[in-house]
Amino acid sequence: MKPLDSFALKHSGGELLVLDQRQLPDLEIWLRCDSPAAMTTMIKDLAIRGAPLIGVGAALALAKFAEAGASPTALQQAAAMLRAARPTAVNLMAAMDRMLAAMDHLVATAEEIFSEDAALCERLGDNGQQLIADGDGVLTHCNAGQLATAGIGTALGVIYKAFSRGRRLHVFADETRPLLQGARLTAYELQKWEIPHTLICDNMAAVLMAAGRIQKVFVGADRIARNGDFANKIGTYGVAVLAKHHGIPFYVVAPHTTIDFACADGAGIPVEQRDAEEVRGAAGAFGKVSWAPPGCDTFNPAFDVTPAALVSGYVLDSGFFPVMPSA
Amino acid sequence: MKPLDSFALKHSGGELLVLDQRQLPDLEIWLRCDSPAAMTTMIKDLAIRGAPLIGVGAALALAKFAEAGASPTALQQAAAMLRAARPTAVNLMAAMDRMLAAMDHLVATAEEIFSEDAALCERLGDNGQQLIADGDGVLTHCNAGQLATAGIGTALGVIYKAFSRGRRLHVFADETRPLLQGARLTAYELQKWEIPHTLICDNMAAVLMAAGRIQKVFVGADRIARNGDFANKIGTYGVAVLAKHHGIPFYVVAPHTTIDFACADGAGIPVEQRDAEEVRGAAGAFGKVSWAPPGCDTFNPAFDVTPAALVSGYVLDSGFFPVMPSA
Repeated sequence: MKPLDSFALKHSGGELLVLDQRQLPDLEIWLRCDSPAAMTTMIKDLAIRGAPLIGVGAALALAKFAEAGASPTALQQAAAMLRAARPTAVNLMAAMDRMLAAMDHLVATAEEIFSEDAALCERLGDNGQQLIADGDGVLTHCNAGQLATAGIGTALGVIYKAFSRGRRLHVFADETRPLLQGARLTAYELQKWEIPHTLICDNMAAVLMAAGRIQKVFVGADRIARNGDFANKIGTYGVAVLAKHHGIPFYVVAPHTTIDFACADGAGIPVEQRDAEEVRGAAGAFGKVSWAPPGCDTFNPAFDVTPAALVSGYVLDSGFFPVMPSA
Repeated sequence: MKPLDSFALKHSGGELLVLDQRQLPDLEIWLRCDSPAAMTTMIKDLAIRGAPLIGVGAALALAKFAEAGASPTALQQAAAMLRAARPTAVNLMAAMDRMLAAMDHLVATAEEIFSEDAALCERLGDNGQQLIADGDGVLTHCNAGQLATAGIGTALGVIYKAFSRGRRLHVFADETRPLLQGARLTAYELQKWEIPHTLICDNMAAVLMAAGRIQKVFVGADRIARNGDFANKIGTYGVAVLAKHHGIPFYVVAPHTTIDFACADGAGIPVEQRDAEEVRGAAGAFGKVSWAPPGCDTFNPAFDVTPAALVSGYVLDSGFFPVMPSA
């Protein structure tokens, strides 16, 4: 496999390397991924995350496995294992389907998936950037940037494009409990890009909307159903309801690899439930802390589903659509 | 001053003692409060918190200061200092006004304020408990319980009363970032009372509402304006918007000491802004951790204001009111 380079995933010196997102922003540690099993664990543990990026990462891991001489049966088993690592994000399924349909040229296909993902981000950014007006306050949830894709990102890619074309804007980043992707990752990316930004707790978005400080909301997606309902990081649905109440446009930004035309509506999207310890405290480069009473019952869905009725438009690689286009 | 006993504030052996709420639920440490200055610091640092309880605590600290022989001038200065410790919560102002109008019997007045607060909680509970039906899922935000008052609490007092009368119910407690009063304090109280409960991140309430798992919302208040707009812990406003969207009744529970008839509407309520470090991480008995990029800009209002239009009713010590009653 040829050398490949992105912000959080690379192939270099014959090794597949993953930037450990659990340690950000404090530590920039690259993990060596030497097998599909290692990639599966990294996906489950969120060392690598972001719907597009885990699809790309899984494809590269499978290609490396093929290069190492894995049998077709072993490759199929590895693809099944990778596919099960995150049930909600459909990009992973799309990448595995594409790889299994190209068993005689897995390496070239994985390289294509990687470079296409970066190109898709560019198109998303170009298609969405005109939605941001000079002076806008823009809210985003979770992280849909360079750390979530092989390119400039989806929702953050739109923001980067608008900013790079001279639009003055201010980003409000939801911290995104429980795993704090906004506080740890989006704030880190925005700092690197030198885009003005303010970190807020998830429960502060409403009062900023009421105060007229947020003009647009942009989020990524983990799976978009045929009718436009979509799954994204837990908390997205609440933001969509708040945006609707305040008359603020709410946009979803995603490449076609996130669309699941086999899924009629949001009810068909499986939502991963995660460990209670994540809600009882927090973890990061500082270690792991817990603040809730030990054993306290929690609810911890990794995603929620937002109905299409709350979406003002879809920024896709094929263009901008006020309502979800058909296949 | 006579012995006084509540869940988080007591006068015992001639000493004023404050349960350090920053250390809960891990450690139950009682701090000795030997001066109005010490009480002021404890209020600012949230060792003692909850609009009713800080009013009571400030009154007791002032009474102890009088017992120690402080001059009228020193008492007035101390009252001014205490009053400035938390600008939003009006119970503190009401307590200080009442004390300054009773300079010749401060100790008896402080004792009255203490015992009245407990009695007010009982009345709130009695007046609100019938709003909870058998089988209800009930959402609350922040902590409005025994740790926030000298009695059984305001919003949690209503829940306790319904539960103690045999109503089966399930409480969903918002963790309430950034200071985690829900995760640390409400979960701790509910565990002690053995009331079934589930801790959630603030951004998970919306999806529970959509799933039909929340039938009522009860919150406390730090100040209610004449028109029914009210200030409460940051995040309350967003919960009210979500409840409205889902057709879920949203109730405010507060004693008359929380009502500010001098304040026409929510625009007149000052909102305290707090330190950025609170949003960049978390603190507790485990110490202090930070997960955001160092120096990251934040927004950190301690409270927000919810307009009366989003309130389904007010549980006051004088009764239940679908709209805010006039003075």
